[in-house]
Amino acid sequence: MQQRWFLEVSFMGGAYHGWARQPNAPTVQQCLEEALALLLRQEVETLGAGRTDAGVHARSLWVHMDLPDLSMGPKDLVHKLNSILPQDIAVHRAKMVPQDWHARFSAVYRRYTYRMLARKDPFWQAMAWRVYPFPQIEPMEKAAQLLLQHRDFGSFCRSHHDAGTTLCEIREVAWEQKDHVLEFHIEADRFLRNMVRALVGTLVQIGQGKYPPEHLQQVLEAKDRRAAGPSAPAHGLCLEKVGYPEGWLD
Amino acid sequence: MQQRWFLEVSFMGGAYHGWARQPNAPTVQQCLEEALALLLRQEVETLGAGRTDAGVHARSLWVHMDLPDLSMGPKDLVHKLNSILPQDIAVHRAKMVPQDWHARFSAVYRRYTYRMLARKDPFWQAMAWRVYPFPQIEPMEKAAQLLLQHRDFGSFCRSHHDAGTTLCEIREVAWEQKDHVLEFHIEADRFLRNMVRALVGTLVQIGQGKYPPEHLQQVLEAKDRRAAGPSAPAHGLCLEKVGYPEGWLD
Repeated sequence: MQQRWFLEVSFMGGAYHGWARQPNAPTVQQCLEEALALLLRQEVETLGAGRTDAGVHARSLWVHMDLPDLSMGPKDLVHKLNSILPQDIAVHRAKMVPQDWHARFSAVYRRYTYRMLARKDPFWQAMAWRVYPFPQIEPMEKAAQLLLQHRDFGSFCRSHHDAGTTLCEIREVAWEQKDHVLEFHIEADRFLRNMVRALVGTLVQIGQGKYPPEHLQQVLEAKDRRAAGPSAPAHGLCLEKVGYPEGWLD
Repeated sequence: MQQRWFLEVSFMGGAYHGWARQPNAPTVQQCLEEALALLLRQEVETLGAGRTDAGVHARSLWVHMDLPDLSMGPKDLVHKLNSILPQDIAVHRAKMVPQDWHARFSAVYRRYTYRMLARKDPFWQAMAWRVYPFPQIEPMEKAAQLLLQHRDFGSFCRSHHDAGTTLCEIREVAWEQKDHVLEFHIEADRFLRNMVRALVGTLVQIGQGKYPPEHLQQVLEAKDRRAAGPSAPAHGLCLEKVGYPEGWLD
C-alpha cells in the first residue's frame, strides 16, 4: 500500500538546469530523487508543481510522491533528506496527504518574484538582476496594471510551446522597493514557459523609457513572442509560493 | 599632489582569505588594488578599517588611499571599479576627504552581525550558521548583557595575538529573530582577532544548555582563550558598519 506525500522543496537554482529531470544536465529533481533513493533504498518518482527554467530559484515548490509505509516520521524524513541534499537544496516540510492530492493539478495559483538591483550588491548578485540603466518604477507600475485586464499571454510564451493554450488569469501584480532592491511580484493560476522573464524584460524596456506604458497593450494584442522584449535573466526569478486549496497545508 | 580618498567596499567573503593581503592566498584587498591599478595605470596602496578573517563578509568596510588628481569624478570611479571587480566584491561610494582622515584610526566603532539558522535554508547558507540543536535565545540574551559590564576580552582572543591590549568597550549587543534567522548584533570601539566568533561560540553553548548564563562571567574573568567555547564558523559573520565621527560620511 503506497501512501502519498507532499514535500516542500527550496533551492538556489544557479547550479541546476531547473527543477525537471533532463538526460544530460544536473537538475533539482534528480538530486532530490537520488537523496530519496539513498535514504529509502528504493527508486522514488517525484512530481513537482511546475517546471522552472535553468538558473531560476524556488523558495517553496511542492512536490508529491508515493511511498510505502515509512519507518520514520515526517520530521525525521525532512532532517535526513537535508543532511543528504547539497547546501543549495533544502526540504522544509513533509506531509502525508490524501491519495488524490496532486502537486501540479491541485495547485490553485503560483506566485513568482522577480528581483532587480539598482546597484551592484555582492549579497544579492546570485538572486537579482543588476539592471543598467535602472528603470523608472512608475511607468512599469502603470503598464503592469494592464496585465490584470488580459487573459491571453501568447506574446510572452516561447514560440514552440507545448502549453496547449496561452490563457492565464493573473490574480495580482505588485511592486516593492526595499532600498536598492526592486521586487516585482506576480500571482496567476498558471504561467507559460518563460512568461515572467519575458514580461519583466518588456516592463523594463518601458521603465527605461524605450516605450510608453501603453506599449504593453499592443504587445499583448499581438499574441506573438517577437512583439515583446527580451527575457530578463533567470537568476532574478524566484518561485515564491504554490497555492493549494485553503486548509490543505496549514 | 596626492589626494586622500575613502572607498566603501562590500564583499561576500566565501572565496577570500579575508580583507588583508597575504602572500599566497586571494584576498579582497588584493582584488581591489589590482582593479585600481588596472583602472588608474599605477600602483595604489589601500588601508582598510580593520582585518577580517578568511570567509567573513563585509556589508560596509571603509578603506582609504592616496591618489593623484583623477580625470574622473567619484561616481565614475565607483562605476568603473565595479565593472572590473568580481561579482562578490562591490564599491558603493567614493569620497575625497581631508588628508588626515584615516580609515582605521579615525574609526569610532565597528558593528558586526552574526547570523544563525534554525533550519537549513539555501538562500542563507552562505551567510548564516546552521546551528543544531538550535540554541534558546533567552539564556543567550541574559549572558550577552554581561558583556556590557566588562572591558577585558582576553578570553576571546587568539592566544598569540599582537593586539597589545585586550581591552574593548562594547557599546551595544542585540538579538533579532526574523523567522528562522537569528541575528546577534554587536558594536564596540574595537574588536580583537576572532573575538566575535569566539563570543558567539560561547553564547551558543549557553543557549544549548551546556552552561548557565553566569558561566560567561567566569569565562570573562579567566582571561584565557581556553576558558571560552569554540569559534563559531566564519561564514555567519558580517562586518556591517564602521562608524566615523558624525557628519564625516553623510
